[in-house]
Amino acid sequence: MPQTEMHYLFEPRSVAVIGVSHDPSKVGYKIVNSILAGGYKGKVFLVNPKGGKICGLPVYKSIAEIKEKIDFALISVPAKSVLEIVTECPTGKIKFLSIVSSGFSEAGNSEEEGKIVCLARKKGMRILGPNVFGLYSAKASLNATFGGKVTKAKAGSLAIISQSGALGIALMGKTETEKVGLSSIVFEGNKADLNEKDFLPYLASDRGTKAVFIYLEGVKDGKQLAENIKKTAAEKPVVILRAGSSAKGAEAAISHTGSLAGETKIFSAVMRQSGAVLAESLQQAINWSKFLASAPAPKGENTVIITNGGGIGILAADACEKYQVNLYEDKSCLKRIFSSVVPAFGSLKNPIDITGQATAQDYQKVLEKALFSHEIHAVICLGCETAVLDSRALSVVFRDSYKKFKEARKPIVFAFIGGQGVKKHLLSLKEKNVPIFNEGAEAVSCLAGLYRHYRQQKRKTEKPRTVFFNEAVTKKVEEIIKKARIEKRHLLYSSEAGEIAEMMGINLPESQVAFSKEEAVKAAGKVGFPVVMKIIDKDIVHKTEVGGVVLDLRNEQEVAEVYGQKRWGQVEIAAMIKGGIEMIVGAKKDRDFGTIVMAGLGGIYAEVLKDFTFKAFPISQNEAEKMLAELKSFPLLSGVRGEKERDIAKVAEIILKLGAVIENFPAIAEIEINPLAVFAKEEGAKALDVRVVINKG
Amino acid sequence: MPQTEMHYLFEPRSVAVIGVSHDPSKVGYKIVNSILAGGYKGKVFLVNPKGGKICGLPVYKSIAEIKEKIDFALISVPAKSVLEIVTECPTGKIKFLSIVSSGFSEAGNSEEEGKIVCLARKKGMRILGPNVFGLYSAKASLNATFGGKVTKAKAGSLAIISQSGALGIALMGKTETEKVGLSSIVFEGNKADLNEKDFLPYLASDRGTKAVFIYLEGVKDGKQLAENIKKTAAEKPVVILRAGSSAKGAEAAISHTGSLAGETKIFSAVMRQSGAVLAESLQQAINWSKFLASAPAPKGENTVIITNGGGIGILAADACEKYQVNLYEDKSCLKRIFSSVVPAFGSLKNPIDITGQATAQDYQKVLEKALFSHEIHAVICLGCETAVLDSRALSVVFRDSYKKFKEARKPIVFAFIGGQGVKKHLLSLKEKNVPIFNEGAEAVSCLAGLYRHYRQQKRKTEKPRTVFFNEAVTKKVEEIIKKARIEKRHLLYSSEAGEIAEMMGINLPESQVAFSKEEAVKAAGKVGFPVVMKIIDKDIVHKTEVGGVVLDLRNEQEVAEVYGQKRWGQVEIAAMIKGGIEMIVGAKKDRDFGTIVMAGLGGIYAEVLKDFTFKAFPISQNEAEKMLAELKSFPLLSGVRGEKERDIAKVAEIILKLGAVIENFPAIAEIEINPLAVFAKEEGAKALDVRVVINKG
Repeated sequence: MPQTEMHYLFEPRSVAVIGVSHDPSKVGYKIVNSILAGGYKGKVFLVNPKGGKICGLPVYKSIAEIKEKIDFALISVPAKSVLEIVTECPTGKIKFLSIVSSGFSEAGNSEEEGKIVCLARKKGMRILGPNVFGLYSAKASLNATFGGKVTKAKAGSLAIISQSGALGIALMGKTETEKVGLSSIVFEGNKADLNEKDFLPYLASDRGTKAVFIYLEGVKDGKQLAENIKKTAAEKPVVILRAGSSAKGAEAAISHTGSLAGETKIFSAVMRQSGAVLAESLQQAINWSKFLASAPAPKGENTVIITNGGGIGILAADACEKYQVNLYEDKSCLKRIFSSVVPAFGSLKNPIDITGQATAQDYQKVLEKALFSHEIHAVICLGCETAVLDSRALSVVFRDSYKKFKEARKPIVFAFIGGQGVKKHLLSLKEKNVPIFNEGAEAVSCLAGLYRHYRQQKRKTEKPRTVFFNEAVTKKVEEIIKKARIEKRHLLYSSEAGEIAEMMGINLPESQVAFSKEEAVKAAGKVGFPVVMKIIDKDIVHKTEVGGVVLDLRNEQEVAEVYGQKRWGQVEIAAMIKGGIEMIVGAKKDRDFGTIVMAGLGGIYAEVLKDFTFKAFPISQNEAEKMLAELKSFPLLSGVRGEKERDIAKVAEIILKLGAVIENFPAIAEIEINPLAVFAKEEGAKALDVRVVINKG
Repeated sequence: MPQTEMHYLFEPRSVAVIGVSHDPSKVGYKIVNSILAGGYKGKVFLVNPKGGKICGLPVYKSIAEIKEKIDFALISVPAKSVLEIVTECPTGKIKFLSIVSSGFSEAGNSEEEGKIVCLARKKGMRILGPNVFGLYSAKASLNATFGGKVTKAKAGSLAIISQSGALGIALMGKTETEKVGLSSIVFEGNKADLNEKDFLPYLASDRGTKAVFIYLEGVKDGKQLAENIKKTAAEKPVVILRAGSSAKGAEAAISHTGSLAGETKIFSAVMRQSGAVLAESLQQAINWSKFLASAPAPKGENTVIITNGGGIGILAADACEKYQVNLYEDKSCLKRIFSSVVPAFGSLKNPIDITGQATAQDYQKVLEKALFSHEIHAVICLGCETAVLDSRALSVVFRDSYKKFKEARKPIVFAFIGGQGVKKHLLSLKEKNVPIFNEGAEAVSCLAGLYRHYRQQKRKTEKPRTVFFNEAVTKKVEEIIKKARIEKRHLLYSSEAGEIAEMMGINLPESQVAFSKEEAVKAAGKVGFPVVMKIIDKDIVHKTEVGGVVLDLRNEQEVAEVYGQKRWGQVEIAAMIKGGIEMIVGAKKDRDFGTIVMAGLGGIYAEVLKDFTFKAFPISQNEAEKMLAELKSFPLLSGVRGEKERDIAKVAEIILKLGAVIENFPAIAEIEINPLAVFAKEEGAKALDVRVVINKG
């Protein structure tokens, strides 16, 4: 859909309500009421077979009766009548149709939903929903929502996309009490046609929108979503709250909206890679959205804490470490800036402690120093209520400072703890858009959200590295797949998987296949001792788990003995590899996000410690290396306790190759090397076990 | 101090204010004003050399002039005059003296502080402070605080111990706006004499106190604190918020109060072991304290979420996983209980979704079902504002339910999202003590705090296992230490450390010392191939880091070759141990908490993954095994991917032995085994490297 089309949804010249009701308690009435009360300036058409007048407007008996084209229509009739009305609707008449009615896929009725979308698309109509609460757009002064008691919304700069109706409506109410201004809110419901990815290009280009908050339960068109988030995040912050990240939450999400929740770790990795900021709770999402919609882009990360109490200063410093907010440490610089405004018994180290004796004027002085010092880029201003502090006077200082800091492009957040005076004069500044909270950690978290956004924007876009396959390789791989399919195997033999890896230029330990004791002994001699003996059996997926691997056979006698004991028939004899750090690397086709590459600590540690990192493919060599650096176990690669640095570049290269396998062979669902033994820098890595899963043919 | 003595502090029959002032802006005046305004019923004595009358009370010119004994006195004079006044004070006259004045150890003046405490103790006086904001006690109707604008405190059941003055005073204000009732608040300041451990026995036995909240920056008398927390937590919940858990926070804490912050992980482990509940932020600490002071003891952990919106239900389920709140899963039971009150298009799986059509009455019905079903032990009741919900009616339902649930000993927490109606009618229930929040996660967190407390209380106290040393062992160990001291070594040779371990019955790989190539080859033959060759050099602490260990030498030739190349002189030849899971175990004398034992994933993974667990010693064999189960890497011991279960009992036994070494030999500061190779169940473990640090003699 061309981007411009979306304007007809968010800035419609005309709106129709189909299934309008004379009964004020009905949805069809409430929507009209909201639209009129909201001051919508475009044309409003009402449709109901009974005709008459509602809220002073004439009611058309059918859509066909309306002569003009309609940009945006909402339909609120019983589920079973929706298809009929869409059928009757002339082609090209309506641009966007929001199906308010429920009783579709969320209630198990996916078929009807599919039919409606299919028909609508044929008629040039895009569907919002079904099962939605409508749309609000500040630019169009259009409040076409129902469901809450609130029909007013505060116009502002935050756009909300909500998959949940109830939560979205409740959020609209909350934005009113928390004084969060909205540029738009769009409800997605069942996402039968339009979903979050479709709204983003409009919101990215809309000047009235300064930040976007997306509440998600499941993902559709994940790959396109990632792409559109990337483009949007380049223009403005995108905050995502995703419900269903836990096992039970995901189960509830499936029963709630019927949309499958993708693997949380992959979802989070891809969203972060696209530049979104992921909130961990609803309140954090709201705080971040509000703050990011109004905060200036910081010039750097030198943050200072200003406080009149040691305790809350320390707690905030703890929160800074937790949230990765960078406390400025240059003591001589801090001294130069603040020594004239901090009493002798205060502290010039960050947190700057202006002591419990500080007055509103003292706060003003120290804030001014921070404002005019170019070394300082952001401020966390905290306080405890004391006898000498006049909350009312301080509220003026905070309001002024907030304004000045914003003009100077320095983010500032506040937190204050105390009784009635603090509540009345300081915490109420929230209503005037000042980011003030009742504890330091919340203020620090907001600043952290902002820095996450700007850090992600500062990353350079790099050209992904492409790995090509020559014809011979392609042909050979396809043969292997064909053979496996004929034999109805979804898992390739380890020898086949190894062959694919070798064709990609990935090193494997030298190995040979043997069918008898004599062959095994001979093979071991060729491969060189010590060797590993592995069972070859198509029915065995995890060889280690069933004891199908014997390590470290040191001579002919041991090989013969083990072969004799095990009675495995066909075995693989491979060189025993030592001294490598065991990693896991892999790639797979994700239902939501396309090709995903992964890396982590390998061997038996893989599933116990679950130290994994994921990225949507393609990525550059540098991004693949950075991906490794995200691992908790990265020091094992970068060198720890006198160990040499490992061949990080080689691991990254292998990751890119595995990604390319998935991209180039749609028949391959998954490829994984575990363990990948990684040697010292420039000494490469060896794939000790390769696993390839192919799709059902 | 006998426990009863503390009554004189919290329930004094008489209070004196020394350094009272005629100037209402001065601390000395404010304290008197607070005491009188608070309605204290005991006798109040004022002292100032000028005499006269203040607030209608006569002012004595000196303490000596007062004929009666004084239970509790506060002194507010310049720091330099405090010692003089204490000197003048007759022995036995004052039981508790709170030094309000600052300018002591927090300002670098520790000497004067020490002198005062020493003198006071001689005169039978205990000191609170210096540098404190006083004391509040509901039982005594005593508000002897200053510093805030608030002189009123709401009497209730939460006791607060605050190391920080400013934060404590601000918290008093906050408890007023958040309607948290206080039984007492005591400020600790510099903790020159009395500290948190001293107040706990009184608070544990005080019937008016239902929960204790401790705000800490540093720890004094950690071992006794742990003991007293254990006793207190057996009676009522103890919530701890500790500032300075981050590196920068700790640095700020030191500059703030001068008290060193112990190692965070050890502090947390010991506090948890003692039964305290550790909050992660100020708001969480306040929420937990308030909730735990009033919530009933749950009968079990079967929790249900009740919601009218799918989205917030899912988010709450996510929070339950994060905070380890157990969602009840028995689907047939849930169906039986709730099917008659949940509409067909709702959900009977947990979260119980009563749908956006739910009214206040529907909430009442479903809450009643939960109330009367003995299978359900706790409820998280959530909602979004909808058109059909009457917030006012719902507020009545919630208030009644809260009361009934409390009577039925079922904890219940609420969260509601929406606009003005929700704010006005529902969130305001907080003031009536109903635990209601503006997001599900906060409600879940409160319940989690409660469960943490009760889980810790449910743990049986087990008899610690004692390891004894016979005389011969003791003598030998002492000889080793003596020798090292003479040679001015703080680190024992690995052979000495190994000897100690062996005397404790800890297995080591067979090994021999060699001084020449020939001896090395011979030793290897005796030990059995393959072998490990290690350098013996007192200057080398981390042998691996300097390449001082060569692994897996397979024959005489390799041994001879390596010896020749390395030119190490003295070497240790040990059997090469394979197939063990590498753990780290250790024990040390902690400055704060006495003997601490630790365990974790060992080898090079130890410092990279930092998967450690700590416990204060002594513990039982069972507790040592449980300690291992806390590790993220525990599945490596319990068996993963077809690997056998490992000898967990043996590892636990070794932990107890190491703890005993520290307990029995004060000269040994630290003993650590890394790696400890752990074999299959009942096959034991071998210490591959033992490190012993001894104290400076």
